[in-house]
Amino acid sequence: MSIFQGLSAFPITPADPSGRVDTAAVARLIARIAQAGVDSIGLLGSTGAYAFLTRQERRRTVESALEAAGGEIPVIVGVGAITTIEAVALAQDAKAAGADGLLLAPMSYTPLFEEEVFEHFATVAKAGNLPLCIYNNPSTTRFAFSRALISRLSKVENIVAVKMPLPSDEDFASELTSLRSTTGPGFKVGYSGDWGCPSSLLAGGDTWYSVVAGLMPSQALTLARAAQDGDALTVQRMDEAFKPLWALFKEFGSFRVMYMIAQILDLCVVDPPHPVLPLSDAARHRIVIALDHIDACNFDV
Amino acid sequence: MSIFQGLSAFPITPADPSGRVDTAAVARLIARIAQAGVDSIGLLGSTGAYAFLTRQERRRTVESALEAAGGEIPVIVGVGAITTIEAVALAQDAKAAGADGLLLAPMSYTPLFEEEVFEHFATVAKAGNLPLCIYNNPSTTRFAFSRALISRLSKVENIVAVKMPLPSDEDFASELTSLRSTTGPGFKVGYSGDWGCPSSLLAGGDTWYSVVAGLMPSQALTLARAAQDGDALTVQRMDEAFKPLWALFKEFGSFRVMYMIAQILDLCVVDPPHPVLPLSDAARHRIVIALDHIDACNFDV
Repeated sequence: MSIFQGLSAFPITPADPSGRVDTAAVARLIARIAQAGVDSIGLLGSTGAYAFLTRQERRRTVESALEAAGGEIPVIVGVGAITTIEAVALAQDAKAAGADGLLLAPMSYTPLFEEEVFEHFATVAKAGNLPLCIYNNPSTTRFAFSRALISRLSKVENIVAVKMPLPSDEDFASELTSLRSTTGPGFKVGYSGDWGCPSSLLAGGDTWYSVVAGLMPSQALTLARAAQDGDALTVQRMDEAFKPLWALFKEFGSFRVMYMIAQILDLCVVDPPHPVLPLSDAARHRIVIALDHIDACNFDV
Repeated sequence: MSIFQGLSAFPITPADPSGRVDTAAVARLIARIAQAGVDSIGLLGSTGAYAFLTRQERRRTVESALEAAGGEIPVIVGVGAITTIEAVALAQDAKAAGADGLLLAPMSYTPLFEEEVFEHFATVAKAGNLPLCIYNNPSTTRFAFSRALISRLSKVENIVAVKMPLPSDEDFASELTSLRSTTGPGFKVGYSGDWGCPSSLLAGGDTWYSVVAGLMPSQALTLARAAQDGDALTVQRMDEAFKPLWALFKEFGSFRVMYMIAQILDLCVVDPPHPVLPLSDAARHRIVIALDHIDACNFDV
C-alpha cells in the first residue's frame, strides 16, 4: 500500500512563545496517533505550523516524531518554504532523519507562475529523494494547481500523490476520473477539508488528509473506515456527530480550533504562534459542546 | 516633512543563489537613488525581496544601505515576517542600525483575522519605536485592510502612514477623503502600483511608493514632481513614455522585470530568488524596447 493512502493524521506542533518546539509533547501526540492505527502521520502540515517554525525546530520536530512513531506508521513531512533553497534543505533534513515521505506546498510571497512551481517541485523532489505529495491548498498558498500542471508533475520522479482541496461542486467522482485519466494508475489522489473528506472516500478518493485525526485519531479512523467500506449510512450518522465541529473549523479556521481541542482534551496547553491568537472563552465553550456531540455518538457500533 | 511623503524608491536587493546579499551592489543602488534626490528609500520592500531573506541578510542589507545613504535621505525598512516574534526582532534590528522608519506588511500563512493583524501591528510598532507605515498589499499578503482597521491602527503610537493598493475604480479623490476623515491630519496616505501612482499624486495623495524609482530614480522623480505640481499635461506625456513598461510590470510582475532592468542598465547581474525564475530572452527584448521608449521622452523639459 502507498504511504499516501487511507487516513493521514495531521497533528499540531506544540511550541513555546519563542518558537521552540516541545518535543516531549510532539512525542505524546505522535504515539497516540500511532496507537489508534491510522495509516500515516502528516507532520508539519499547515496544521503542524510548518510555516511558522525555523529549520532547526522543524528538524527537532521530525526527529522526535520519528522516534515516537517507532517505525509503526509512515511519517510524511511537510517541507514547504518560500525559497527553493530552504525547501531543498528541509527535504534533505527530513530524508536524513528517516522520514517516509514529503509533502510540499507552493508556499510563496510573490505570486508564482506555473513554470516556477514546476521547477520548484522538480528540484525539491529530486533533492529529497523520497515519495512526495503535492500539497494543493490555495487557501493558504494562493496557488491553484491546474490539471495540466498536476499531470506534468505526476511524471516527475518521486512525485506520486496530490492532496486536493474540496471541489466547489462537491463532485468528487468526476474530479477523480479526470485527474486519474492524466496522472497514471500509481498516482494517489486525496483530499483535505475534513467536512468533505468522508464523502471523498465514499467516492473512491485514495486519502483523507485529516486535521481532526491529529488530535482525535480513533473517532476519525472509525469514520474513515466506514467510508472506505462504502457504508454510506454509517458515514452519514457519524458525520452528523462531527457537524458542529466542522462548523467551528469553517468559522475559526481548523488551525485555531485544534489548539483549543488540545487543551480541552488535556493533551497540551499551548497557544498558536503569534500573530495567530488563541480563541476566546466563548469559542472554547462552543468547542466543548461540539466535542461532547461527538462523544455522544457511539463510534464503536 | 514626513518621511512618508513624496517619491519613495524601492530597490531590489541583489543576492547570490545561496541567499547571501551583495552589499557592495546594494550600496551602489542606494547611492544612485540618493544622488537622484528622491524623498526616501523603501528598503527591503516586496521589490527588495524581504520575504526571501534571512534575518541576518536583512540586517546586513540595512547596515550597508544606511552607510551608502549617508544620512542624506531617509531609509524606511520593510520588517514583515510570518511570526510576530520575527517581525519584532527585525524592527529592533532596523532601529539599532539607525533606520528612519519601518514598513510592515501583514505577511501570513494562515489567513489572519482583523484582531490578529491589529495586535501584530501594535506589538511591532511598539517594539520598533520608529515611525511605521502600514503596508497594505493584498496581492502579496492576501490581507485587505478595512477602513475601520486602518482608522484604528492610525491611533496607535508610531503608526503614521499607510501604503495603499490602487483603488479598483481609480477614484483616488474619494478614497483619500474617506481615509483622511478617520485617520487624522498627520497621517499620510500613499499608493503603490506604479502605473496608477502619478494620478494618485495629482489627486492629492501623499506618497508614491515606487518600484521603478528603485532603478530609474531620475525619470520617476521628474514624473513625480510634475504630478506634485499639479501639471497634468506633463504627467500625461511622461506617463505615455512609461506605458510599455507598466504593461510589462502587469504581465510579468514588477519584481521579475526589475531584475532584468538592473541587468540591462548594467547595475548588477543577479537572478531573482528561486522559485521565482529569471525572465526569458524574449521578455528581455521587450523590456529593452520599453526602456528605449522612456529614453526617447525628454524628461528634462
